[in-house]
Amino acid sequence: MPTFLDDLPPTPARPPDSHKGTFGRVLIVAGSRGMSGAACLSGLGALRGGAGLVDVATPASLQPLIASFEPSWLTFPLPEDAHGRLDGSAFSLIADRWESVSAVAMGPGWSVTDNTRSLARLMIEQCPRPMVIDADGLTALVDQADAWRKSPAARVVTPHPGEFGRMRGVDAKVIQADRVEHATEFAREHGVIVVLKGHGTVVTDGERIVINSTGNPGMATGGTGDVLTGLTGALLAQKMAPFDAARLAVYLHGLAGDLAAKELSQPGLIASDLPSFLGPAWLKLQELRGRAGG
Amino acid sequence: MPTFLDDLPPTPARPPDSHKGTFGRVLIVAGSRGMSGAACLSGLGALRGGAGLVDVATPASLQPLIASFEPSWLTFPLPEDAHGRLDGSAFSLIADRWESVSAVAMGPGWSVTDNTRSLARLMIEQCPRPMVIDADGLTALVDQADAWRKSPAARVVTPHPGEFGRMRGVDAKVIQADRVEHATEFAREHGVIVVLKGHGTVVTDGERIVINSTGNPGMATGGTGDVLTGLTGALLAQKMAPFDAARLAVYLHGLAGDLAAKELSQPGLIASDLPSFLGPAWLKLQELRGRAGG
Amino acid sequence: MPTFLDDLPPTPARPPDSHKGTFGRVLIVAGSRGMSGAACLSGLGALRGGAGLVDVATPASLQPLIASFEPSWLTFPLPEDAHGRLDGSAFSLIADRWESVSAVAMGPGWSVTDNTRSLARLMIEQCPRPMVIDADGLTALVDQADAWRKSPAARVVTPHPGEFGRMRGVDAKVIQADRVEHATEFAREHGVIVVLKGHGTVVTDGERIVINSTGNPGMATGGTGDVLTGLTGALLAQKMAPFDAARLAVYLHGLAGDLAAKELSQPGLIASDLPSFLGPAWLKLQELRGRAGG
Amino acid sequence: MPTFLDDLPPTPARPPDSHKGTFGRVLIVAGSRGMSGAACLSGLGALRGGAGLVDVATPASLQPLIASFEPSWLTFPLPEDAHGRLDGSAFSLIADRWESVSAVAMGPGWSVTDNTRSLARLMIEQCPRPMVIDADGLTALVDQADAWRKSPAARVVTPHPGEFGRMRGVDAKVIQADRVEHATEFAREHGVIVVLKGHGTVVTDGERIVINSTGNPGMATGGTGDVLTGLTGALLAQKMAPFDAARLAVYLHGLAGDLAAKELSQPGLIASDLPSFLGPAWLKLQELRGRAGG
Repeated sequence: MPTFLDDLPPTPARPPDSHKGTFGRVLIVAGSRGMSGAACLSGLGALRGGAGLVDVATPASLQPLIASFEPSWLTFPLPEDAHGRLDGSAFSLIADRWESVSAVAMGPGWSVTDNTRSLARLMIEQCPRPMVIDADGLTALVDQADAWRKSPAARVVTPHPGEFGRMRGVDAKVIQADRVEHATEFAREHGVIVVLKGHGTVVTDGERIVINSTGNPGMATGGTGDVLTGLTGALLAQKMAPFDAARLAVYLHGLAGDLAAKELSQPGLIASDLPSFLGPAWLKLQELRGRAGG
Repeated sequence: MPTFLDDLPPTPARPPDSHKGTFGRVLIVAGSRGMSGAACLSGLGALRGGAGLVDVATPASLQPLIASFEPSWLTFPLPEDAHGRLDGSAFSLIADRWESVSAVAMGPGWSVTDNTRSLARLMIEQCPRPMVIDADGLTALVDQADAWRKSPAARVVTPHPGEFGRMRGVDAKVIQADRVEHATEFAREHGVIVVLKGHGTVVTDGERIVINSTGNPGMATGGTGDVLTGLTGALLAQKMAPFDAARLAVYLHGLAGDLAAKELSQPGLIASDLPSFLGPAWLKLQELRGRAGG
Repeated sequence: MPTFLDDLPPTPARPPDSHKGTFGRVLIVAGSRGMSGAACLSGLGALRGGAGLVDVATPASLQPLIASFEPSWLTFPLPEDAHGRLDGSAFSLIADRWESVSAVAMGPGWSVTDNTRSLARLMIEQCPRPMVIDADGLTALVDQADAWRKSPAARVVTPHPGEFGRMRGVDAKVIQADRVEHATEFAREHGVIVVLKGHGTVVTDGERIVINSTGNPGMATGGTGDVLTGLTGALLAQKMAPFDAARLAVYLHGLAGDLAAKELSQPGLIASDLPSFLGPAWLKLQELRGRAGG
Repeated sequence: MPTFLDDLPPTPARPPDSHKGTFGRVLIVAGSRGMSGAACLSGLGALRGGAGLVDVATPASLQPLIASFEPSWLTFPLPEDAHGRLDGSAFSLIADRWESVSAVAMGPGWSVTDNTRSLARLMIEQCPRPMVIDADGLTALVDQADAWRKSPAARVVTPHPGEFGRMRGVDAKVIQADRVEHATEFAREHGVIVVLKGHGTVVTDGERIVINSTGNPGMATGGTGDVLTGLTGALLAQKMAPFDAARLAVYLHGLAGDLAAKELSQPGLIASDLPSFLGPAWLKLQELRGRAGG
C-alpha cells in the first residue's frame, strides 16, 4: 500500500482563503421513481468529496423527497414521463444549468428509455464540462458508442462488469477473464477514462493503468456505486485531472468501505454508510501519507 | 452459548470477487397506510442482513415516504384500495418482480382484508422463491392453511404466540404451554419452517429443533419482528438453506437486541435501533466464533 | 439524590417471557399543521419510555410526515379542519381506538379552537384509560375545569407555569411564588395528578408532594415538554400507579436532559436530543440504584 | 486565541429558573423550491444556538418537507408564487408573526424576484425586532440601500465577498483587497453590523472591529452560511447586544467547523454537520475560558 500511496495524486489544496467557488460545483442528474435513492447517494458522495456546491437534478416528482433528505444540497426539478423518469425535454434545462457548474455526474437510477437514451447521447456530445457517467447512463449509450469520441470535455465511465459487458457486447465473464485488457482497450478506442469496478477496480486512460488496493466484498451491495459517481464528480469539480480524480475517488471510496466494515461488518455495511465514512477516509489517507513521509 | 455457536450454520461466504448479485436480491412486500414503518423496518433488516439488493414494494401512496427513509433500497409502488392497503391487482406485478429476485419477505404491516387474504394465498401457492411470511401475512392465511403444502419453494413462518394461536385455532396460552410441540407439529403438518417468537424462540423444520439463546425483554416492542422478517429474507436470498437462514437470523436479531440493550437499556430500546446493531452483531458473532476456536 | 432515589418507585418489571402486550399500548393524540413536531416528540418519548406499542393519531394531512419520521410507531389519521387542526368528528375515531390501548396522551401541538375545546372535554369525561394531558390540551380546558372530576380514570396534567396560570386564572408569577401550594390545591380540588414544570418540577396528587432533582436550564427550549408527555404516557401504559408514573417520568426526563447537556452543552441541547438520551438515562438510574444498594 | 477569548462577550446566562421564554423566539424566513435546505440549516443553527423557540416560515409548498426534517421547531406556511418562491402577500403574515418573537433571520434560499425585493425592503424598514439578513435577502436589497437607515431596530448583515461586492457595487476582488475598510465603511454608512465572511471573518459596527480566529477552508461549502444566520438570530433572540451576538456567533460557528474538521476532515465536512458540532463548540468555549481563568 505505501507504494500505491506514492502513486496517488495529491489531494486538492485547501488554501486558507478558499470559498465555496474554490471547490467547484457538481451537477448530478440522477434518479427515477423507485430509484430516487441513487440520486441521494450520488449527492452525498459529491458533498463528502469536497465539492463547494452540489445540485441534484431529478424528475420533478422526486424533488421534495430528495430535498428533505439532506439540506446541504440544492435540488432542481426536471420534466418527467408518466412513470417518473426523465423526459427528453429535460435536456435544455440541464444544458442551461451546466453553464454554472464545473463538473457533471449522470446516470444513477435513470432507467433506460428512448428518452434517456437520447438524453445521454446529447449530454455526452454537448456538455463542455468533465463528466462521470454511471449505471443506466452507460446502458443508455450501449448502441451509441460513437458519441464518446464527440465529447468536448473529459468523460469518466464507471461500469461494473455487467454494464461493461453490455458496453463491449460481451458477457460479463468475458470481461472478468481479462479486466485490464478490456478496460484499456475501451479507454483507448473511445478516448475516455474507464473505471471498471469489482475486486481490484481498474482505472485507466488507455495508457496508464491502476489497480485499486482498497475496498472489500461488503461493498457488493446496491447503491455503493452511486456514491462513487458523486465522489468522482466532486473531484472533477475540484479541477483534478480526470485520471487522477478517478483513481483518487476509487481509492477513497474503497477506504471508506474498509473503515465502515471494521465497525459494521461486511454483511452489515450498506451503501448509505459510505458517505459517513468518507470524512474518516480523507483523514486516514492524510495519516497514511504522513507515515510514509509523503 | 459456545455449544449453541457450534450448532449455528456458517455465515454466507464473502469471496473477494463478490458483486451485488452474489448476495441475492430480496423482494419485500409490506406496509399499509398507518403501518408504513413495518415496510421500513423489514427493509432495513434485509439491508443489514447482507442482501445484495433490496426492493421494498408497498401500496403506491406510501412509496415516496418509504423512498425518502433510506436511499440504499429500491421502491416499487403497488395498487392499493381506498385505505392504502394492497389491492388484489397487485399480484401480477409482484409475480413479475419475483422473477428477478432470490427471496421474498411478506406480511409486515399488511392489514387483513379480502384482498390481502387472496393475495397471501396466491403468493404462497405460486412464488417459486423461498419466502418468509410474518404478521398480517400469517393472519391472512388463517383459514387457508391448505395453501402451505402447495408451495413450490421453501416457506419460513415467523409468528408470535398470538398469531400462532390464531394459525392453530387455539389460545396463545395453549401455545405457550407447549411451544416446541406446537411449532414442530405445524412445521411437520404443513411442510414449513416455523419460527415461534417469544422468550426462547423456537426454530424448527419439524425434525430439527433449536431454542434460541439470544435476545431480551427489551425487544418486546412494536416492530422488532419486522426487522427479523427482513433479515431472514436476506439470508434466504444469500442461498442459505431455509432452516439455517431462520436460525441464524433469529440468533443475530437477538444478539443485536442484546447489544442495543447494553447501550440503550431494555425499556429504552426501540425497533429502529435493531438494524443499527446488526452490523455489530455480525462482528460479535465472528468474535465469539474466533474465541471458541470455530 | 440518594434520598430522592429511595423515594422513586421501582421501574416496571421486564420478566423474561414478556411480549409487546406486556408493556402496554399508548395512544398519542397530538399535532396540527405547523406543530407536527409535537406529535413526533411525544411519540419518541413514549417509545423510549418502554411502551410495547405506540399509536400516533394526528390530523390526516400530517400523517405521511409523521409516518416518515420514525418507523417504530403506528400512525392514525384523524379528521381535520381547513387549517390542519383536529375536527370535532375525530372524537368517535379516538374513542374507538382507545378501547385497544392502555393509556392516552393528548394535547401537544393541538392549537386551541372550539373543536379542540369540545374534544378535550369529551376525552377527559369519557376516556376509560389513564391519560396525560399537556400543552394546548390543558389550555383547551381552561373554562371547563368541571370536566376533571368526571374523569372515569386517572388524569395527569403537565402544565408549565404559564399554562398553569391560565388554568388557575392567575398570572404565571403568582404560580411561581408558591408552586407547591398551587399544584397541591389544584390536584386536590380536581382529583388529578399535577406535574408543575419549571425549576424543581412539582409532582403531587394533592397529598404526596415530590420536588424533582434532575434537569437543567438547557431544557428550557421548545418541545422538551412534549417528550415528557409521551414518556408519562408510556409509564401509565406499563400500569404504573399514576403518581408513580408521573414522578418517574419527570425524573428520567430530567436525567436525560442532564446527560444530554454534558455532551451538547445547555444552549446546544434541543428537544429532539432528549429521546436519544432516555436510553442512557434508564441505565444511569439502574447504576445509581445499584450504588445506593437499592 | 486567549487574547481573543478575552474579547468575546459573555455567553447568555442560564439561570436555574429559566423557561423557554427566557431564551427568546426566532422567526426564520427562508427557502424557496430547490433551496429548502437553507431554511433547515438556518433553523438548526438557531436551535443549537440556544433559542427558546424557533419558527421556520417558508413558501407553503415547502412546509411539510421542513416540518418533517426536525420536530423541535414550529413551521409556518407563507404565500408563494408558481415557482415556490415567496409572494409579496407574505409580508402581512410575517409582520403579524414578528410581534411574538424576539429576533428575525431572513434571506437564506430566498431567490431574488420583484416580490422578494419588495419583501426585503418592507421587512428592513418595518420590523421592530433585531434582524440578521443573509444571502438572497442581501442581494434583494442591492439597489435599495437607503432602506438600512430606516430600520427601527438593529440589523446584522452577513455577506460573503461576492454578495458584499454586489452590495458595494464593486467586484469581490476589490472587497478582498481591503476587507476591513469595506466592511467598516458600509457599517458606518448604513448603521448596521457587518459580518464579512471568508478567511478571517470581519465583524464590525463601524467603530469596533473584530477579525475572527476560528474556522477553516473545509467550511467553504454550500450552506454553512445558513447555519451562521440562524445562530446569529438565536443570540439576538437571547438579547445579546447585536455586535456581541454577531461576533460570538461567528466564533462559535468557526469553532464548530474546526471540531467537525477534526473528525470528518476538511473536504469531508458538509454544512449539515455544523449544527451537530455547535453543542461541542459551546462546551469547548467554556473549557477554553476556564483555562484562561475567565
